[in-house]
Amino acid sequence: MIINNAEYRSVWWEHGRLRLIDQNKLPFEFAIAEFTDCRTVSDAIRDMTVRGAPAIGAAGAFGMALAAQNAPDDKFRSHLRNAHDNLISARPTAVDLVNGVNHVYEQTLKFIPDLQHARKVAILVAQEFANRSAEDCRQIGLAGNEIVPDKARILTHCNAGALATVDWGTALGVIRTAHRKGKEIFVYVSETRPRFQGARLTAFELEQEGIPHAIIPDDAAGYYFWKKEIDLVITGADRVCLNGDIANKIGTYEKAVLAREHKIPFYVAAPLSTFDFTCHRGADIPIEFRSEDELKRWGDVPIANPGSPVLNPSFDITPAACITGIITRKGVFHPREAAQKIQD
Amino acid sequence: MIINNAEYRSVWWEHGRLRLIDQNKLPFEFAIAEFTDCRTVSDAIRDMTVRGAPAIGAAGAFGMALAAQNAPDDKFRSHLRNAHDNLISARPTAVDLVNGVNHVYEQTLKFIPDLQHARKVAILVAQEFANRSAEDCRQIGLAGNEIVPDKARILTHCNAGALATVDWGTALGVIRTAHRKGKEIFVYVSETRPRFQGARLTAFELEQEGIPHAIIPDDAAGYYFWKKEIDLVITGADRVCLNGDIANKIGTYEKAVLAREHKIPFYVAAPLSTFDFTCHRGADIPIEFRSEDELKRWGDVPIANPGSPVLNPSFDITPAACITGIITRKGVFHPREAAQKIQD
Repeated sequence: MIINNAEYRSVWWEHGRLRLIDQNKLPFEFAIAEFTDCRTVSDAIRDMTVRGAPAIGAAGAFGMALAAQNAPDDKFRSHLRNAHDNLISARPTAVDLVNGVNHVYEQTLKFIPDLQHARKVAILVAQEFANRSAEDCRQIGLAGNEIVPDKARILTHCNAGALATVDWGTALGVIRTAHRKGKEIFVYVSETRPRFQGARLTAFELEQEGIPHAIIPDDAAGYYFWKKEIDLVITGADRVCLNGDIANKIGTYEKAVLAREHKIPFYVAAPLSTFDFTCHRGADIPIEFRSEDELKRWGDVPIANPGSPVLNPSFDITPAACITGIITRKGVFHPREAAQKIQD
Repeated sequence: MIINNAEYRSVWWEHGRLRLIDQNKLPFEFAIAEFTDCRTVSDAIRDMTVRGAPAIGAAGAFGMALAAQNAPDDKFRSHLRNAHDNLISARPTAVDLVNGVNHVYEQTLKFIPDLQHARKVAILVAQEFANRSAEDCRQIGLAGNEIVPDKARILTHCNAGALATVDWGTALGVIRTAHRKGKEIFVYVSETRPRFQGARLTAFELEQEGIPHAIIPDDAAGYYFWKKEIDLVITGADRVCLNGDIANKIGTYEKAVLAREHKIPFYVAAPLSTFDFTCHRGADIPIEFRSEDELKRWGDVPIANPGSPVLNPSFDITPAACITGIITRKGVFHPREAAQKIQD
C-alpha cells in the first residue's frame, strides 16, 4: 500500500527482524514497531498493535520464525512448541493466526536435527506465507471487481484493508481494484466500535488511495439502507467455515441481516488463510470477549457509567444464508461451495 | 427519579426559573443548570444539555414561559413569536418540542391584552404540560408492564428514561415499573454512538434503580439476538406518525429489523406529546444531521481519520411493519391504531 507516497506492507521481515505498522497509533501517528523475539510479537497481537485476520496470521508466522532463530539447540523443539502455544493463544477468533503459526511450526520441525537449516526454513516459510497472503489479496481484488457495478455505493465494516492483511486488502482490496480500474465508487465506512478501525484505519486507507468515502456511526447503516443509498456490502472475515458461515468483527451480522432485508448483495472477501477446513459451522467458532476498558474510556476520557458492567464481544457469526457470495482468489463462490472450491 | 437518594425531575420550574439536570455532564458530574431567558434554553436544547423528546418538549414549554415573563408589554406578541420560532428550530426531529412550544404559545396568546394574566398562564400551562408528560410516563409504565414477562432479557437503545422525559421514562419507565413490581429482568444497554446516551445515561439510571444490566457496543445487539439472549426490545420515540411509523435515535431501525428477523417483539413507548397528528408517514419526518465533531473526537481525544468526511444522521425511521406495539398511557396498541386510540 502507498502511505505518504512510499510503498509499505503492514507486516514484513527485514534485517532479521519482524517489522510492522503500529495500528494502534494510526492515523494520528505513523510508526513502525520492531520485534526480535516471539513473546513481544504475541503481546503485539494481543494488544492489537497488529490486527486483521491475515495480518495477524503473517505476524504469527514471523513470530514462529523469530522463535526458531532464538531457540537454543538443546531445547529447540520445546522452545518452538511454547512459542507456538503462546502465539496461538493471543487471539482466539481469527483462524489465520492458527494457520500461519502452524504452517511455520510444522515446516520447521521437518528439518530437525539440522537446526541451522531449520532456522533458515522458518524464515523462508514465513516469508512465503506472507507473500501468498498479499498475492491472494491481489487476486481477490480482481475476482471481486467483477461484482462491483460502476457508481456503486458500497458499505464496508471495520478494516479489511492493506493494514489488516499483508498488503492490498480483502474487502478493501476489491474496492481498491475497482477504483483503480476507473470505476466511480463511494464507500460508507462504519466507524466500528469499540476501537474505531473503520473511522481510523479504513478511512485512512481510503484517503491515501483517493477513494470518495464518508465515516458513519455503526448504527447508521440501517438508515442508509432505508434511504436506498447502499448498493453493495463487502466485508472481510476472521474465519470461514466449511458450511459457509463466517466470523467477522462484531456488527457484521447486523449489516448482513439489513442487506438481506433490503435485497442488497452482501459479499465476504477472504484469502486462503482465513478458511478453517476443520470447522463445520459458525456456532463452533470461539468468540473473543475483550476488556471492559474498550467501552469505558477513549484515551483518558471516560465514556460509560463507572458502576455498570460491560459485555464486549469482539466478533459475531454471519450465517451462510445471509451471504451472497465469498470472494476468493479463485473467484466468487456461493458460501456453501467456497471451502471446496478454494481447495480445488 | 431518585438520584443519590433524592427525588428529581429532569426539567422543572422553581423560583421563576427553569432548572434542569445537565445531561452532557452525567454520569461523571451531577449538575443543575438554571435558565432565566428563552434564548439560553434554546441553546441548551441545541447542545443537548437537555435531550430526550419529552424532556425537550417540557424545556421548550418552560422556555416559552420564560419568554412571556421577559416580553416587553409593547412587543409582547412579536417577542413570543420570535421565541417560539427560535425554540422550535433548536432541533428538528422530536415533535414534542413543537408540541410543547406551540401549546404554551397558543394558550398564552389567548389572554392578550391582559399581559399580567397571560404571563401567569404561560407558567401554569408549561407546568401542566410537564406534569402531564410525567404522568403519561407513569401510565406508560403500568400499561407496558403487561407485556414484560418475568425473567425477560430486554434490549433498549439510547436513553428513554426519566432523564429523557420529565420523570419516570418511557421505555425505561416500563422497565422501572416491571422491576418495582418484582419482576426479575436484565437489560442490554446499547451504548448509542456518537454521544453514548445508553452507556452514560441509561446505565446511570439503571444503576441508581438497582436493575441488573450490561452495556454493549451498538453493533453487538445482533450477536445477542443470534445467541437467543434477548426476549424483548423496548425503545422510546422522537415522533410517532399517523400510520404508526416512528422516528427515534439512529440505530433503532437496525434493532427493529433484527428483532423481526429473530421473531422477538419490538415495542415503542411514547407519551401523548410524541404523537404528530399532522404527519402521515415516517418518510415525512425531518432527520437531524449533527456535527462531524461528534464522530471525530471524544473529549479532546481524536477518534477518526482527520481528512475523512463524516455523515452523522441523528435519527432514523422505523416503519410500523417492524413494530409489535406502541405503548401509551391508554394501553398497548398496534402501531397503525395508536394515533387514533390515544385521541379517543
